Amino acid sequence: MQIDIQAAESLSQLLGARFSQSQADRELHGASETFHRAPPPDAVVWPVSTEEVSAIMRICHEHRIPVIGWGTGTSLEGHALATQGGIVMDLMKMDRVLEVRAGDLQASVQPGVTREALNTELRATGLFFPVDPGANASLGGMAATRASGTAAVRYGTMRDNVLALEVVLADGTVIRTGTRAAKSSAGYDLTALFVGSEGTLGIITELTLRLHGQPEEVASAVCAFATLEEAVECVTATIQSGIPMARIEFVDGDAAQAFNQFSGGHLRDQPHLMVEFHGSPASVQDDARKFGELAADFGGQGFDWATTPEDRAALWKMRHGAYRACLALRPGATAVVTDVCVPMSYLAEAVAAAAADIKAEGLIGPMVGHVGDGNFHSQLLVMPGDEAELAAAKRVATRMAERAIAVGGTITGEHGVGIGKRPLMRAQHGEAIGAMAAIKAALDPLNIMNPGKLIPDAN
Amino acid sequence: MQIDIQAAESLSQLLGARFSQSQADRELHGASETFHRAPPPDAVVWPVSTEEVSAIMRICHEHRIPVIGWGTGTSLEGHALATQGGIVMDLMKMDRVLEVRAGDLQASVQPGVTREALNTELRATGLFFPVDPGANASLGGMAATRASGTAAVRYGTMRDNVLALEVVLADGTVIRTGTRAAKSSAGYDLTALFVGSEGTLGIITELTLRLHGQPEEVASAVCAFATLEEAVECVTATIQSGIPMARIEFVDGDAAQAFNQFSGGHLRDQPHLMVEFHGSPASVQDDARKFGELAADFGGQGFDWATTPEDRAALWKMRHGAYRACLALRPGATAVVTDVCVPMSYLAEAVAAAAADIKAEGLIGPMVGHVGDGNFHSQLLVMPGDEAELAAAKRVATRMAERAIAVGGTITGEHGVGIGKRPLMRAQHGEAIGAMAAIKAALDPLNIMNPGKLIPDAN
Ligand SMILES: Cc1cc2nc3c(=O)[nH]c(=O)nc-3n(C[C@H](O)[C@H](O)[C@H](O)COP(=O)(O)OP(=O)(O)OC[C@H]3O[C@@H](n4cnc5c(N)ncnc54)[C@H](O)[C@@H]3O)c2cc1C
Ligand SMILES: Cc1cc2nc3c(=O)[nH]c(=O)nc-3n(C[C@H](O)[C@H](O)[C@H](O)COP(=O)(O)OP(=O)(O)OC[C@H]3O[C@@H](n4cnc5c(N)ncnc54)[C@H](O)[C@@H]3O)c2cc1C
Repeated sequence: MQIDIQAAESLSQLLGARFSQSQADRELHGASETFHRAPPPDAVVWPVSTEEVSAIMRICHEHRIPVIGWGTGTSLEGHALATQGGIVMDLMKMDRVLEVRAGDLQASVQPGVTREALNTELRATGLFFPVDPGANASLGGMAATRASGTAAVRYGTMRDNVLALEVVLADGTVIRTGTRAAKSSAGYDLTALFVGSEGTLGIITELTLRLHGQPEEVASAVCAFATLEEAVECVTATIQSGIPMARIEFVDGDAAQAFNQFSGGHLRDQPHLMVEFHGSPASVQDDARKFGELAADFGGQGFDWATTPEDRAALWKMRHGAYRACLALRPGATAVVTDVCVPMSYLAEAVAAAAADIKAEGLIGPMVGHVGDGNFHSQLLVMPGDEAELAAAKRVATRMAERAIAVGGTITGEHGVGIGKRPLMRAQHGEAIGAMAAIKAALDPLNIMNPGKLIPDAN
Repeated sequence: MQIDIQAAESLSQLLGARFSQSQADRELHGASETFHRAPPPDAVVWPVSTEEVSAIMRICHEHRIPVIGWGTGTSLEGHALATQGGIVMDLMKMDRVLEVRAGDLQASVQPGVTREALNTELRATGLFFPVDPGANASLGGMAATRASGTAAVRYGTMRDNVLALEVVLADGTVIRTGTRAAKSSAGYDLTALFVGSEGTLGIITELTLRLHGQPEEVASAVCAFATLEEAVECVTATIQSGIPMARIEFVDGDAAQAFNQFSGGHLRDQPHLMVEFHGSPASVQDDARKFGELAADFGGQGFDWATTPEDRAALWKMRHGAYRACLALRPGATAVVTDVCVPMSYLAEAVAAAAADIKAEGLIGPMVGHVGDGNFHSQLLVMPGDEAELAAAKRVATRMAERAIAVGGTITGEHGVGIGKRPLMRAQHGEAIGAMAAIKAALDPLNIMNPGKLIPDAN
């Protein structure tokens, strides 16, 4: 589509230089981290306030122009691509931490605040925000994708850590969802509905987040296992034993090699677990001892404790850099990223089946995962233009998803649907897709909010 | 309304004696625990399977008959009253624990399983389900009201402990929401939407619940405070200090007296806190010591430790019996029950203001509360027929709710909206009511699912 002259005029009058139709701005907001591709949007806008977001929506509603929210653009399923044209709304100029209410363990932020910026701001308070996707994503984008990361096993995901939202609906109406109380039974849980809605129901303009006390003591370690099965079975046993892990991450042999090459790690050419414990000095010691015993039962070797804050930071930086490290295994490659999440009792089976399938298709697909939640990823490396390889990667990804569904799991534990997982949504949800489509139509009857995403078969 | 003959015939053919229009059955399903009153429903049905629920919904949809779900009928805001006539669907014959998956810390149950029945069934597994409203409510009803209770401060509410649902929609369509994985980003969070929807969007026919390991060690205690302010400020300090309380309950002087009279307690005529700690023996000891120090700072006296399981059971039975104990303070009375929940930093202020207001209106209104969440109740005792007293109680309840809204809290922390809190919904949610109404209309266009509840101003 093209933006008609009248709409362009209105937007330009409202926003001045913060409305752009330049090729450069459009291309910057038309790229994806992964193999997904689409033409750039017709224009980009950078609102600085809720009022501006509302005014933009009113104009776009009147002219039926698609609007696609944009945080840091790190989503992995083509979520923020303007597949039907329209305007990308970049929210990164709304980047203020509005209020930290330490006594209530809460902060209110604009959507363009990144998780690292928030945690920097919080440092002096003794509090932190625990949801940490590898990327330094925007909190608005993280809410929109229902993101999680390495610490979700202890602190939960964006579902658990967003208390309230301000949202601008398709027609420009501004609503507030949720409250600042710890819990509420006052009507439909609109907060949970917008968390994970991927910009298809409205634009998030403010978030009230739950904060947590910085742990008194932290201990991190990495240890190696002879086989993938033993590493993963150790995770299942750990979770079932109730040891309150703060993080428990799986890294396969390929990913370990990638870390060594990219981040100067010294890991063996074997599967590893990376773990972290939070608590009082006594409880951390106790938890670490119990985990050590369990790991020994599964043949865990070469425990390497990160004792200083610097060592710990290096360990988790290495883990959080997994995506780029794995890409670097094959220069020039892009990735099909899988994201299944299964009940704990099926985890070992699911990881083993994925590994076998990747091997059988002759692909390079290092695996890492937030296995404490039953969530793991393979990053299937494909050369741009190699259609056969892309098809093979998609076959592997689809089979992983189908196996997850078969055991009651999910096609996406944290990345979201975007365009990449859309074809699998019906297999996941069956008749419930109808309810999702009805809600979408009720809140966005003109279908201008990130159209063509999340809900399958719709326009 | 009346049920037309054709519909009655279809239902009778489908259900035999499990369709009843008898006066006795209707009256049993037309009562409320509190002061709310409405004529009984036109009929009662007792389905035994999802297929039957679906068939009933198809009949009622065709004949536009309101359908009101019914668990144990303990909700406090007239939720399950047939205010517009129609059929009450009693789900208590769907009372099977379908599957306990101990390795995944999950159970699947039918909606008519009560929380006590589930916990009895789980005893041998070392697991338990932690959400515990005072009443032995049905898990379907608890999900429908987004219930919580004394242990929510540690284990969360129904929002946090329902992973997946099976729901029958207004037209009989059966959908499944959520998954058995620990987390998912696969589309709109329909589970969270149905949890707390009070039967206005569909009938819950199956729940997948999160279970928790029974704590290795448990310690409970009760202690007294000289003033209400000191007791509540002790709670705020405890929560802010991060001591992982399993329960922390407030009981005012009147409620303490009620417990003594009704349950044979030996509490002083003073405000109390009842607390519980869960964990390893070492951590429980540590937590209890830290709490003891904090309580001493606020003048806590007469710590009484419940050391045996029997003593503990007696303590919590007394607390869970609060509703009936307080009613017994004034024989013949019924109650207007308040349920505000505020951010922790406003808790002391909110409780004090409520106490002053109750006194100023000359009412008897003992207070108890899940204060670790910022949630507290006053049970305003009114004599049936005394309109002036009822009006005074409603004024107090409304002012408590308005003060809660003013500090960012909620008009209902756990009981839900029903008809009682409906007039306050707009003050709480503003423009967001429009979004709730749109969702209701999208999923139940004929408005047959528990009509006249939750959403204000609607029919
Ligand atoms: C190296 C790397 C590692 C990653 N690791 C993880 C991980 O561990 N866990 C995880 O969950 N994810 C991970 N991701 C994926 C990504 O970081 C998350 O999906 C993140 O939440 C996206 O945030 P963003 O700000 O980049 O959003 P964007 O990509 O800009 O947008 C994502 C979606 O949200 C919508 N959106 C953005 N802002 C708003 C708003 N304010 N209102 C409404 N809709 C909006 C967009 O329209 C789009 O649909 C990783 C990505 C990379 C590149
Ligand atoms: C003594 C006492 C103490 C209480 N303490 C607490 C407390 O601490 N915390 C708390 O949260 N509540 C408390 N309550 C309130 C009450 O127990 C809860 O609201 C409970 O969740 C209601 O469950 P129920 O099975 O009785 O539901 P009902 O009262 O039968 O129904 C409640 C609502 O849910 C709907 N519904 C019921 N079953 C279904 C279904 N399967 N599908 C769809 N809709 C359905 C009904 O239509 C109605 O709108 C207390 C009540 C009493 C009497």
